[in-house]
Amino acid sequence: MKIYDTKTAPTPRRVRMFLAEKGLEMDYVQVDLAKGENLSPEMRLKNPIAKIPVLELDDGTCISESDAICLYFETLHPNPPLMGNGALEKATVAMWQRQIDLCLFMQIGMCFQHSTGYFKDRMTPVPEYGKVAGENARKYLNVLDKRVAKYPFMAGENFSIADITALCSIDFARVVNIRISAEQTHLQAWYDKVAARPSAKA
Amino acid sequence: MKIYDTKTAPTPRRVRMFLAEKGLEMDYVQVDLAKGENLSPEMRLKNPIAKIPVLELDDGTCISESDAICLYFETLHPNPPLMGNGALEKATVAMWQRQIDLCLFMQIGMCFQHSTGYFKDRMTPVPEYGKVAGENARKYLNVLDKRVAKYPFMAGENFSIADITALCSIDFARVVNIRISAEQTHLQAWYDKVAARPSAKA
Repeated sequence: MKIYDTKTAPTPRRVRMFLAEKGLEMDYVQVDLAKGENLSPEMRLKNPIAKIPVLELDDGTCISESDAICLYFETLHPNPPLMGNGALEKATVAMWQRQIDLCLFMQIGMCFQHSTGYFKDRMTPVPEYGKVAGENARKYLNVLDKRVAKYPFMAGENFSIADITALCSIDFARVVNIRISAEQTHLQAWYDKVAARPSAKA
Repeated sequence: MKIYDTKTAPTPRRVRMFLAEKGLEMDYVQVDLAKGENLSPEMRLKNPIAKIPVLELDDGTCISESDAICLYFETLHPNPPLMGNGALEKATVAMWQRQIDLCLFMQIGMCFQHSTGYFKDRMTPVPEYGKVAGENARKYLNVLDKRVAKYPFMAGENFSIADITALCSIDFARVVNIRISAEQTHLQAWYDKVAARPSAKA
């Protein structure tokens, strides 16, 4: 079993941090996105949309999408639970995971891709859209500041995959100069607490 | 228990179809998106990002995001399974569900929002980006045509939530004039089969 990974990219970090929280060891194979190694015919057989990370099982079966890879390990190794226990907590984690992914992580990604033209060899950057996406991400940090004013973690009382996604989003946001503002004191306190977990170094 | 729903919108249809496949009855409360009823302070208390659908439990607890609502019911009513059985099938369903959502449903949504300016009172449309998003959706239909050339359903041997998302995406795509092409015969056969399920009318 191994994971095709890119050490410097934000999405595969979400999976590395998840596995570190589970205490699971993994073999990682580095793929250079800047050189387009993910776009090779071999990698497209593993993932038709040519994104990283990809989990490859010993029989060659491949699973892509960070949430799907995490769900695989959550199902096999349910403790500690990182995707909730029981219907309501599972749904609450999934809700925050999804909203943080959509309203923060992906907006930062779109801001980065469309503003910088980093992947202009393989997509059409629209700088005006990059700006809108960056504004969306900035606004959503206020939603999260209010959330962690009420609860210790994004999905409520327990640390979860939603905290991993939020931490990886906020760290990624530095590349487009989006940061927690001085007024977002609850979010800063949450950040300091989660960034101090050993898994954040994975 | 009730769901805040918009009968004409594509996202809440995903939940209605999921519940119909499970054979579960539900009370629906209609919310008029065009009039901005979803943006009221009351609705923002139910969902901070003011999107529909929202599941409200009898104690007032709210769950938003269609996948999170579906996961709630999948956990309480596991049969028939629509999100996979066991780690590998769950992960495979999650992978296809995510890719179809990201590469088809959301691209069509971005094409619609940015090309038509339908929600220009509440967002900044970037028509050039709308065009790129539409092209992305068109390209991804080829990935799905290849997929269902090999397997009866999107996630493999069994009907799943990924088929629901794909069907709702393709029906939604008519508003931006994106359709299955004459060459995509496998995808058309899959579409005809899934559209004939009674749940497709939910």
